[in-house]
Amino acid sequence: MDRIPYQATGAAATYDGIERLPVAVLLDNVRSMYNVGSFFRTADAVAAEVLCLGGITASPPKHAITKTALGAEERVRWEHSWDVAGMAARMRERGFELAAVETSLHSVDLFDWTPRFPVCIMFGNEVDGLSPELAELADVHVRIPMLGVKHSLNVATSGGVVLYELLRKYRALLRQA
Amino acid sequence: MDRIPYQATGAAATYDGIERLPVAVLLDNVRSMYNVGSFFRTADAVAAEVLCLGGITASPPKHAITKTALGAEERVRWEHSWDVAGMAARMRERGFELAAVETSLHSVDLFDWTPRFPVCIMFGNEVDGLSPELAELADVHVRIPMLGVKHSLNVATSGGVVLYELLRKYRALLRQA
Repeated sequence: MDRIPYQATGAAATYDGIERLPVAVLLDNVRSMYNVGSFFRTADAVAAEVLCLGGITASPPKHAITKTALGAEERVRWEHSWDVAGMAARMRERGFELAAVETSLHSVDLFDWTPRFPVCIMFGNEVDGLSPELAELADVHVRIPMLGVKHSLNVATSGGVVLYELLRKYRALLRQA
Repeated sequence: MDRIPYQATGAAATYDGIERLPVAVLLDNVRSMYNVGSFFRTADAVAAEVLCLGGITASPPKHAITKTALGAEERVRWEHSWDVAGMAARMRERGFELAAVETSLHSVDLFDWTPRFPVCIMFGNEVDGLSPELAELADVHVRIPMLGVKHSLNVATSGGVVLYELLRKYRALLRQA
């Protein structure tokens, strides 16, 4: 089959009429700049509204971010705050449902979850996960199903899984309407 | 809410009765060992059948793989071959549908795609994508929707998106049966 090379066109693509996904991403003290760069790239790919960088999460310009973001860090809106809980609270005031990606007693399976758009989806530190304060603040805890024995994914991989599932759900919602 | 710490239990978890996802993953000349390690971790998380490492794709034991696989490389079945097309052909002989993750003229949207399990899902090199030979060999080309301007994802992130969508589809299929 003929192949279309991966290439930036300069203009943003739409997807079934979707120009922007009503989703914000909040990173709570993510340590690795490569993970942050990967989130920029994925946030650009799904046209997320904004990337909220909290605490020690690095913000552009940084060489290690650019290395994995490949320029997406120049196109995705982002903000940074040391007061991560305050940033989450502001997103709620702006109408976003606060969803924590977290395995907890009351967590909802990602694929069974019915989000209330707009959604602010929160990811925690690579080792410690979300701070207890943010986990407590969340409207809902969402868990990614795990069949293996490790019971965890790389945080940037989790980001791709959750953001694309939100895109799938949002498209399905628009088709129903 | 109470939180369950991420921890390996020693025993593999099932998901709605699914013990193993009938999916193989083939990596065609993936350059970065961090990406390979990430694929091991994701393949463990969805309990994929086997990880086929082709060409320059590194295989365990390697420090850089362990660093991102975090031990998953000891639990996921893998094989390596320099003859990547031969490896793909053997998977077809074993009954797997060969699906290329590739943007091409005839590609099917990931979310609209109806896979025929078992599926061998093939990912290409970070820069060059799949070799023309493998792209030609594939039964189907599957594309991940892209709304941004970059039109590509990190290959390990793509792996998470596609493998979890296959898990979602497989569970839905079992529920219908």
